[in-house]
Amino acid sequence: MLAVHLENGVVTLRDVPAPERPAGFALLRLLLGGICNTDIELQRGYYSFAGTPGHEFVAEVVAADTPALEGKRVVGEINLACANCDWCLKGLGRHCPNRTVLGIVNHPGAFAEYFTLPERNLHIVPDGVPDERAVFAEPLAAACEILDQVSIPCGETVAVLGDGKLGLLAALVLNAHGYPVRLFGRHAEKLRIAARAGVETAIVATPPVAEYAWVVEATGNAEGLRSAVRMTRPRGTVILKSTVHGAVGIDTAAIVVNEITLVGSRCGRFEAALPLLGREGIRVGEMVSARFPLSEAPAAFARAAERGTLKVLLG
Amino acid sequence: MLAVHLENGVVTLRDVPAPERPAGFALLRLLLGGICNTDIELQRGYYSFAGTPGHEFVAEVVAADTPALEGKRVVGEINLACANCDWCLKGLGRHCPNRTVLGIVNHPGAFAEYFTLPERNLHIVPDGVPDERAVFAEPLAAACEILDQVSIPCGETVAVLGDGKLGLLAALVLNAHGYPVRLFGRHAEKLRIAARAGVETAIVATPPVAEYAWVVEATGNAEGLRSAVRMTRPRGTVILKSTVHGAVGIDTAAIVVNEITLVGSRCGRFEAALPLLGREGIRVGEMVSARFPLSEAPAAFARAAERGTLKVLLG
Repeated sequence: MLAVHLENGVVTLRDVPAPERPAGFALLRLLLGGICNTDIELQRGYYSFAGTPGHEFVAEVVAADTPALEGKRVVGEINLACANCDWCLKGLGRHCPNRTVLGIVNHPGAFAEYFTLPERNLHIVPDGVPDERAVFAEPLAAACEILDQVSIPCGETVAVLGDGKLGLLAALVLNAHGYPVRLFGRHAEKLRIAARAGVETAIVATPPVAEYAWVVEATGNAEGLRSAVRMTRPRGTVILKSTVHGAVGIDTAAIVVNEITLVGSRCGRFEAALPLLGREGIRVGEMVSARFPLSEAPAAFARAAERGTLKVLLG
Repeated sequence: MLAVHLENGVVTLRDVPAPERPAGFALLRLLLGGICNTDIELQRGYYSFAGTPGHEFVAEVVAADTPALEGKRVVGEINLACANCDWCLKGLGRHCPNRTVLGIVNHPGAFAEYFTLPERNLHIVPDGVPDERAVFAEPLAAACEILDQVSIPCGETVAVLGDGKLGLLAALVLNAHGYPVRLFGRHAEKLRIAARAGVETAIVATPPVAEYAWVVEATGNAEGLRSAVRMTRPRGTVILKSTVHGAVGIDTAAIVVNEITLVGSRCGRFEAALPLLGREGIRVGEMVSARFPLSEAPAAFARAAERGTLKVLLG
């Protein structure tokens, strides 16, 4: 079968045997994959990754222990948890210390004709949701994670900083949950996607100071984090969505004096994301910048890495 | 009257007129003051401070609009809030944007024979509490602030990092509220103060990794903050008590991936601290390293700045 291979920053295609299906796992056929910023980071050498990347997908179940799953379209939780540790027993397998992670840590990813995941990781896609929307389930779950972690009072305005994929999804998810959202970005055409869903948007060089009680930081850069802290009112909360590699210089004295809370936020529950895929206000269709067949993965990665690109699909 | 003066890093004594008492204010006679790390930081040039420092005190009310206050021993909230803004109306005058701060921002401090504070800032000291304990009300309130900000489940072990004044007080307050506390420090004689109150203590060069769901960072240095994040379990909380000046390099990716929450924590409510002053487990008496008369303030500041010193009292 065809599989994308990423090593030393180079994306290639390989012809490899289809994977074995261990007990409890499903064999999946890729329908559509999405390239995430994390994939671009893997290409840049983070985590010293070598193998098949890909963790955003919609796939068809080819074989499974549970016959009812076969033939179904599924999306899937990317953390392969042990199911036995304290974290797993608390329902937080996403933090299982024994986990592998699809296409990121010690489990071959979804950018291949076939791949495997435990059956318990899978969620069946509702019939009315096309592949092009279903493929957004994973990043949408990451946006929903914000509302799982913090309890924002009704009617509170949430500022979202960054108009990349994650910033847009966070703004759309918060907007869909009834919060007034103000999205700060640098690209008029990206901001328009959120604006069409009713999000208030602004292009700003310097964000306002100490104005918001709730700020989502999704810029993907260190300066964004500093801006987010400056935007936050005393006793306010910054939700950190950007994974910036290396040490980020932060003025912790301002955080202490103003008693600001920073909440690191990563993957989320698919259960929260799936119902949103059917909602018109979640305008993920407009976030697709390009689509390539799997056989053109090197070009797809190159396109995804260009500045200003939103989602690049593969498959 | 005699007043301590701090300017360009030099502590001197001046003979100045006693302050006027504005309406709503009390005129206070210093009984005993405490030198805080913030005072030492002011001496090092932070906030470009010039004036009379001092914000930890117990004093006698000499004159006030409310006759019943006169002659009473009091401690006091250091933030002089406007009482009219949104913050003040929410009971959070400690974050009033119009505030001045006793001995720190635009209001002469307590290290003088006489000083003033609004009557509403004052709390009467219970009769059984000697001056030497009452003077700890302000830092004790700062330690109590932790429990006002986060809701730690019963029985959860809290790790406290740092065996300076604030680390010891945080450990003693958490211990007095029934939490198992593990205090990590570098000074056997300081750790013993907490140990005598029932706190488990440890001298460690390298703290454990990802072990605690609740960590209080009170080391006063940047490396302590990094250690605190490393000690914290996924989904855990670090309470930041240290005000480290300048940018601190933090690995924010680890905070995001492990979904750690950082909570900046500063001044607290005196209402929470006062009942603790009468509790035997709050062993503040053992935290006094030296006591100087006000007229020897320069020597007192020099002593307070020496490594290993705990509280230096003045008066």
